[in-house]
Amino acid sequence: MNRIITLTTDFGVGDGYVGTMKGVILSINPQATIVDITHEIAPQNIEQGAFLFASSYKYFPANTIHVVVVDPGVGGARRPIAIQNGETLFVGPDNGILPMAIWGRPVLDDATVHESLPWAAGRPPRMARMGNLPFLSFTAIVHLNNPAYWLPTVSNTFHGRDIFAPCAAHLSLGVPIQALGDPIRQLTRVGPVPNVRRLTDKALGRVIHIDHFGNVITNITEQALSGLDRERIVVEVGGKQLTGLKRTYSDVGSGQPLALVGSAGHVEIALRNGNAARELGIRMGDGVVVSVAG
Amino acid sequence: MNRIITLTTDFGVGDGYVGTMKGVILSINPQATIVDITHEIAPQNIEQGAFLFASSYKYFPANTIHVVVVDPGVGGARRPIAIQNGETLFVGPDNGILPMAIWGRPVLDDATVHESLPWAAGRPPRMARMGNLPFLSFTAIVHLNNPAYWLPTVSNTFHGRDIFAPCAAHLSLGVPIQALGDPIRQLTRVGPVPNVRRLTDKALGRVIHIDHFGNVITNITEQALSGLDRERIVVEVGGKQLTGLKRTYSDVGSGQPLALVGSAGHVEIALRNGNAARELGIRMGDGVVVSVAG
Amino acid sequence: MNRIITLTTDFGVGDGYVGTMKGVILSINPQATIVDITHEIAPQNIEQGAFLFASSYKYFPANTIHVVVVDPGVGGARRPIAIQNGETLFVGPDNGILPMAIWGRPVLDDATVHESLPWAAGRPPRMARMGNLPFLSFTAIVHLNNPAYWLPTVSNTFHGRDIFAPCAAHLSLGVPIQALGDPIRQLTRVGPVPNVRRLTDKALGRVIHIDHFGNVITNITEQALSGLDRERIVVEVGGKQLTGLKRTYSDVGSGQPLALVGSAGHVEIALRNGNAARELGIRMGDGVVVSVAG
Repeated sequence: MNRIITLTTDFGVGDGYVGTMKGVILSINPQATIVDITHEIAPQNIEQGAFLFASSYKYFPANTIHVVVVDPGVGGARRPIAIQNGETLFVGPDNGILPMAIWGRPVLDDATVHESLPWAAGRPPRMARMGNLPFLSFTAIVHLNNPAYWLPTVSNTFHGRDIFAPCAAHLSLGVPIQALGDPIRQLTRVGPVPNVRRLTDKALGRVIHIDHFGNVITNITEQALSGLDRERIVVEVGGKQLTGLKRTYSDVGSGQPLALVGSAGHVEIALRNGNAARELGIRMGDGVVVSVAG
Repeated sequence: MNRIITLTTDFGVGDGYVGTMKGVILSINPQATIVDITHEIAPQNIEQGAFLFASSYKYFPANTIHVVVVDPGVGGARRPIAIQNGETLFVGPDNGILPMAIWGRPVLDDATVHESLPWAAGRPPRMARMGNLPFLSFTAIVHLNNPAYWLPTVSNTFHGRDIFAPCAAHLSLGVPIQALGDPIRQLTRVGPVPNVRRLTDKALGRVIHIDHFGNVITNITEQALSGLDRERIVVEVGGKQLTGLKRTYSDVGSGQPLALVGSAGHVEIALRNGNAARELGIRMGDGVVVSVAG
Repeated sequence: MNRIITLTTDFGVGDGYVGTMKGVILSINPQATIVDITHEIAPQNIEQGAFLFASSYKYFPANTIHVVVVDPGVGGARRPIAIQNGETLFVGPDNGILPMAIWGRPVLDDATVHESLPWAAGRPPRMARMGNLPFLSFTAIVHLNNPAYWLPTVSNTFHGRDIFAPCAAHLSLGVPIQALGDPIRQLTRVGPVPNVRRLTDKALGRVIHIDHFGNVITNITEQALSGLDRERIVVEVGGKQLTGLKRTYSDVGSGQPLALVGSAGHVEIALRNGNAARELGIRMGDGVVVSVAG
């Protein structure tokens, strides 16, 4: 059965781990079309993983099966899960990447986190839980605890091979998600809440990805800028200030830095014909302030 | 419709950009077979890109569609184009890589550049234009300016996703190239003319690629050596001299350097069981002289 | 004819070498499904190559064709070969990787090497030859010396493109292995015998791979530990001692090192949420001692 399965991991491609997962999938469904999204997510970086995966998976056909494995907790208590959202299926560990990538994350200030999101109220942000919230339009979330769809032997350290790949392959053959395990009502979020703070006249965020070209991508989306005068916007990061949001790299001279809204809809800092992160000394996690010139 | 589409870019594989392009292609033509040639071209390196792509694409079936995106001018004035050359289709920005890879580049001395190539006469080399020359056997060149074959929304910074991938996918479904935009008669070449100077008794070139093994590949092809006595050839680069062209790496002892004609037909410097570039201190762009021992 | 062909090399993915091999394969069999296992084997590292390939290929369907090219002797005297083992086909140079990966390597002490293996007796370990031993269950081994199944022109430096890829593609079309060349009865092993020394109360081995996460993988398999009390096991490497074999990474605190049997069945040293090789100063080839606490 010809169905697309994508793979997104922090495995790298040098060790054969990804090739092995493909072998497992093709052993179950030789007709599957397997596509790599990326295998270079920083180990355990849930926020970067959610950003990179979200920027890419929306461009695949709706009936694609997406396997996302960033899994520092492998072999421990965290659950393997599958999510069906409309026609699309997602498979991975229950650590927050999938809901962040599927349903986005609201632009919040600290007050809103604790006032409007029932699941966050009264809990420390690092262990917030996402419940069956009204804005979540999923069809089903399942705990992948039916061993009939795993490999016969399951290791303690490579569930990508032993659980996620075979479950995805069985889904690609048309097995209904409900067969793969028990329903789940509460997803777990691991790691810090990646909130952007939107104040009246500014947005506060941070650097969540630096790409191959040295472009610096922040967690501040275009929507988070609504109401700010784009001509007078000032982006501050790593002690540098950039004024105005440009359209594209060639809007400035060679070697000049610029801020723009990148192709994934996030505020980005670039350097024409150069590496912005290196030249400007910006690193993952650095704070970013978008304000309006007085 | 099963058709092969290759991808050659300077995007790297870590950011999901390539995976996203594959999602776009498969959303339009789920039967396409997509193959990566390389995504590690040095940013903006037209000459290296043309070399790597030319060394590879000729081994694909004639009816393949090749997408080549090294695109420092994205979002600016440079045009997105498609070229049909016989059965083969090429898609990418109009910056010189495609004609260099498809029609090669003549071995020239400075005089020849200005005498025999009408398109170069009287123009500064950096902005030379290639016209509808007799030796160009193309069938059609088209400006990809028909938005019906783009994604509905086009960003200013990621035409690989928004224009090149969807156009290639539509071509793979059998859409004729003429439907994708207006015909073009003049291609633009960006960047330095990568000429090899062939004098009576020597050829002058430079290092255009250093591969994974540290093999140093020059822009001097086997043809550029015609008339030189191969037994007495001396290759000079980075202050080192190598005498004779060997057949293969094991023609010298372990740890010994050698010059040979590599698998792509270019003069190459290697080090048996070692990294020539590192051991000999050779870098991209270094000058190379091939002469004959007196 | 839809058949899976896997590729395992030390070529890296930046130079287009792998893409070129795929072009050759698809030119001969456009229906082939090509899967990368890894292209990051350390140049000439037969032992690492055999480990990574063996850990992965067993997860593919039995009728897969596996191409393995780690080939420092390309263009020299070493033979290109194909091996049929049951339904599975293997293609690569005759340098020891394939038999090591297919038939494993016994746990030996020095005496056993010279006493029980006729092919090793009286020969220096570095050039040991593997004969038609009873425990080798292959169906056929063939010297790929029939040029009808090569590319028309064969270079001296890229047999992956010119011999291995086309031979694999022809095999995928159903050409019998015997057609590709003459039968071979003696395989050659190049490089050191990768023996683990198992003494009464300990096993001596070494580090054969360090993965993307910094996990340190040894050549000591779970089987080599039989008879040792796993609770009291002490793993020594790089001057550090780790007591006990854990189940998985989360069995220790964040930042703590541990020893475990990894997903490929080898003793492995890891560091929870960190890079064991870097933090503990362990490198490829370092000696490893597994003993039992007194």
